[in-house]
Amino acid sequence: MGISYSSPLSPSLSTTTLNITHSSLFPCTSKANPGTISDSTFSHTNNISLNNLQKPTKKFGSFYYCSHNTTCLGSKIVPLKCFDKVREMETQEGIAQKPTIDIHGIDEELVQKMVDDALVWSSLHGLVVGDRSVQRSGKVPGVGMVHAPFSLLPVTFPESYWKLACEVAPIFNELIDRVSLDGKFLQDALSRTKKVDAFTSRLIDIHSKMLEINKSEDIRLGLHRSDYMLDEQTKLLLQIELNTISSSFPGLSCLVSDLHRSLLKYYGEHIGLDSSRIPGNTSVDKFAEALAKAWTEYNNPRALVLVVVQPEEHNMYDQHWLCAALKERHNVRTIRKTLAEIDKDGEILPDGTLLLGGKEISVVYFRAGYAPTDYPSEAEWRARVLMEQSSAVKCPSISYHLAGTKKIQQELAKPNMLERFLENKEDIAKLRKCFAGLWSLDDSDIIKKAIERPDLFVMKPQREGGGNNIYGDDVRTNLIRLQKEGSEEDAAYILMQRIFPMVSPTFLVREGICHKDHAISELGVYGAYLRNKEKVIINEQCGYLMRTKVSSSNEGGVAAGFAVLDSIYLN
Amino acid sequence: MGISYSSPLSPSLSTTTLNITHSSLFPCTSKANPGTISDSTFSHTNNISLNNLQKPTKKFGSFYYCSHNTTCLGSKIVPLKCFDKVREMETQEGIAQKPTIDIHGIDEELVQKMVDDALVWSSLHGLVVGDRSVQRSGKVPGVGMVHAPFSLLPVTFPESYWKLACEVAPIFNELIDRVSLDGKFLQDALSRTKKVDAFTSRLIDIHSKMLEINKSEDIRLGLHRSDYMLDEQTKLLLQIELNTISSSFPGLSCLVSDLHRSLLKYYGEHIGLDSSRIPGNTSVDKFAEALAKAWTEYNNPRALVLVVVQPEEHNMYDQHWLCAALKERHNVRTIRKTLAEIDKDGEILPDGTLLLGGKEISVVYFRAGYAPTDYPSEAEWRARVLMEQSSAVKCPSISYHLAGTKKIQQELAKPNMLERFLENKEDIAKLRKCFAGLWSLDDSDIIKKAIERPDLFVMKPQREGGGNNIYGDDVRTNLIRLQKEGSEEDAAYILMQRIFPMVSPTFLVREGICHKDHAISELGVYGAYLRNKEKVIINEQCGYLMRTKVSSSNEGGVAAGFAVLDSIYLN
Repeated sequence: MGISYSSPLSPSLSTTTLNITHSSLFPCTSKANPGTISDSTFSHTNNISLNNLQKPTKKFGSFYYCSHNTTCLGSKIVPLKCFDKVREMETQEGIAQKPTIDIHGIDEELVQKMVDDALVWSSLHGLVVGDRSVQRSGKVPGVGMVHAPFSLLPVTFPESYWKLACEVAPIFNELIDRVSLDGKFLQDALSRTKKVDAFTSRLIDIHSKMLEINKSEDIRLGLHRSDYMLDEQTKLLLQIELNTISSSFPGLSCLVSDLHRSLLKYYGEHIGLDSSRIPGNTSVDKFAEALAKAWTEYNNPRALVLVVVQPEEHNMYDQHWLCAALKERHNVRTIRKTLAEIDKDGEILPDGTLLLGGKEISVVYFRAGYAPTDYPSEAEWRARVLMEQSSAVKCPSISYHLAGTKKIQQELAKPNMLERFLENKEDIAKLRKCFAGLWSLDDSDIIKKAIERPDLFVMKPQREGGGNNIYGDDVRTNLIRLQKEGSEEDAAYILMQRIFPMVSPTFLVREGICHKDHAISELGVYGAYLRNKEKVIINEQCGYLMRTKVSSSNEGGVAAGFAVLDSIYLN
Repeated sequence: MGISYSSPLSPSLSTTTLNITHSSLFPCTSKANPGTISDSTFSHTNNISLNNLQKPTKKFGSFYYCSHNTTCLGSKIVPLKCFDKVREMETQEGIAQKPTIDIHGIDEELVQKMVDDALVWSSLHGLVVGDRSVQRSGKVPGVGMVHAPFSLLPVTFPESYWKLACEVAPIFNELIDRVSLDGKFLQDALSRTKKVDAFTSRLIDIHSKMLEINKSEDIRLGLHRSDYMLDEQTKLLLQIELNTISSSFPGLSCLVSDLHRSLLKYYGEHIGLDSSRIPGNTSVDKFAEALAKAWTEYNNPRALVLVVVQPEEHNMYDQHWLCAALKERHNVRTIRKTLAEIDKDGEILPDGTLLLGGKEISVVYFRAGYAPTDYPSEAEWRARVLMEQSSAVKCPSISYHLAGTKKIQQELAKPNMLERFLENKEDIAKLRKCFAGLWSLDDSDIIKKAIERPDLFVMKPQREGGGNNIYGDDVRTNLIRLQKEGSEEDAAYILMQRIFPMVSPTFLVREGICHKDHAISELGVYGAYLRNKEKVIINEQCGYLMRTKVSSSNEGGVAAGFAVLDSIYLN
């Protein structure tokens, strides 16, 4: 740390030429509206809970649909009470770039028609989630369904950034694979984290055990999602995080793109939008294809794909879409089991074959196991170890899982670190361009700066869940406390440049009700990677997820408002 | 009345050669199991409520999803407690024809897998209804959805009967059109009913008014559904009723056929069933096409199709599927309004043009207006009259509506009556073959017989709703009472031969739970008819609806158990 980045465009922090202004910390390529900083409650969140986020948030795979504060009266309504606030915010905080989609120009009757059509479309086309207010909705399919929350219109997104995000996906895939093979790097980088984070510590233990027994994974499957925000200040597309386990919404994200295309087909003319500018979204097909090819590489037609699930999963339909594609397009069967069930019914044969209830498992696809709450007892850890030891293809393996941790993200952002894993200089430059400023807390200079300007930083605990991020004055308070205590607790956090995305007025639809509010968006780009020994079988970008969230509360990360599924409109 | 039918195969009742045995009343063509009478709680129901039918039932277009008596615990289960009862019933009552699908042979684990798959399939493919236990589920799309109740497997149905039901559909279409043009016949036939049935009386008043003003309908659109049961005793496919208004389930019925085909594609081999034996079901496409062609005949590209709906509609997705097909395949827009809203916002221009909120309506498609409860005030009646007076195409017109009443069904079953409307003798013979015994209560011979053997008859009030039918000893009690009173109340009823359909063990899935029980089924065949003056544009059979219902209660019509959507498996 402490070495300045070479590129003036990179979100680096020079330790020698520091003066505490936002522009020097994160130099802008464009200064159309210098000094205007959009408030963000959304940046630096690991996961956007698609709901009332006052509940504890989980990573990627699940989200909350508990009752929102809105009182739900008889029918859906479009409360436009936020309208004045929107104007006010525009004046107070400024919007660096006028959105292409001017929702103020759309009349209320048309909005209501579109909302009705969108709700019907969602219901008929399986854009649904389990409704937390209905018993059994997280356990039994077909019971207690509600449309997934969605944005009525796609969010404008510059085509150049979209292309960049697509281009880097295969490079990130490759990077993760290379990093996963460097056991010593993973162990060393995570050694301090291990001491203060019990959950990561258990994962590292599994990793150590695999190193000890010299476990190799010939067939390696990665289904990743790299999340970005477009920073208004630096005009850079900055990576929030790279998910290597349980990347959620490959199923529903495609449907939202279809929904928006369908709406624009009928209403596009009225609002001046062209459905062809919503990029095609093939995440569910591509993920299914990757799982199917991994299954093919394993080479036992009778073997099953095991989907590791949480005991209660309100986002099950997203998962079911993927399994349906696997079944219908590739004739590959899946079986859904919790970690506890796997502990109970799983076994390994002497040759490494994983059996579950006597049936051979070729591929283990994790949609659980990423959070401490997924391991309430030793049974779940036993199941994880059992699968890791087996010869089944793990998506992800423990190495892939660790390679996606925040600490590793921060380590990879260090100067010259990418060069350790990648050869192609252009590739390296592209990745680096996407890196936000990332620092460990053993860097005293950056601590000093963060205490002076806490509004420009986010403290992110290694522990998953955007709700745990620390913003604003709390950054200062916590940093001072950690300095005083002098404990190792600082290793549990990284510091990240705070990103200030564009705020746009948006129609957000949830529980049949449309709300107009200011919102910010986060782009996730899916990547699939499959190799068997030296043969790379798949390495591609495969679709995207846009999530949009009300940006009405100033602090507290994702603690206020709710996020909805969205798509992008290229401009 | 009182004249015996010519064909020995017809379900006639000879007044001269009467002896009170079932076989003589309704002669069998086959006597494989003479003397075995399957109990039926299903026959003679106007509508099969897909739910707990202790609630008041409505006709065709809606059904109840209120809480079933089953206690819903954590997860879906397959209670096989009925198994012993099933065996017992086989012994007590006999089953005339062994079903092709032997569900006893399917192991429990396989059933659970199929149930899971079916629930997921339903959720992803829009085979859903509003869940009555969730607020707003009947008003706002996308909120409070639950899978539509379905039978896990299709019901075996002899191909010859299926073909007959398809063949007669266009003949019934033609018949209804002819009858609708004979205003005097309708008025005369319904004159006694008018005196005792307030609802039918209001419909007849509208009809009279249209006759007075010499209102003619050049473009006539019928979207009918003729419902049948296969009588085990006579081996005849007997018509229960012909729905000319608000024929429900054109949307969901197609999906159930798809669901069953999908299940058989994956599990068919294990249970010895071939998915290709489920006939294609195109009801939603054909109905949409008929509506679109009527819209085309009306010839105003800017005009809308008005869907008349109930204020609360838990079967809205069935309707939305039809409207989606109209929009996506034919680019025809629909607008949904209640009768009260139409009264408020509707008007007729001097040239007869129907406007709703200033927008021209080309076709009025009724999914409400068939039951007295649809007209809680004069406003609704005003709306009905307004639409009838307009030049919009009505589906159905008041004449089509009346032509589908039970009284007219009974009148048409009288000897030589079909000859009044149709010329082709073969066509007439085919229709007559499907007529169950139907009598008015002014026939003293049949009253005598029904008092002696009430188990062989059903008393059906003109009033809609299967829950109002009278069975068993109640037939005797009511007939004796009516005889004593000597009032005109007898005109409110018709008597119908009781049909005894085959009872088969069936898996019924509702609210995520699979129940095994004995069930009976009713086949509905959709027909579409469109003409413009002398030009017949459409006259065809277009898909089917199978409904299956537990047959566990001996009496009380549809008062016990619940019905589910089903499809047919030809053998």
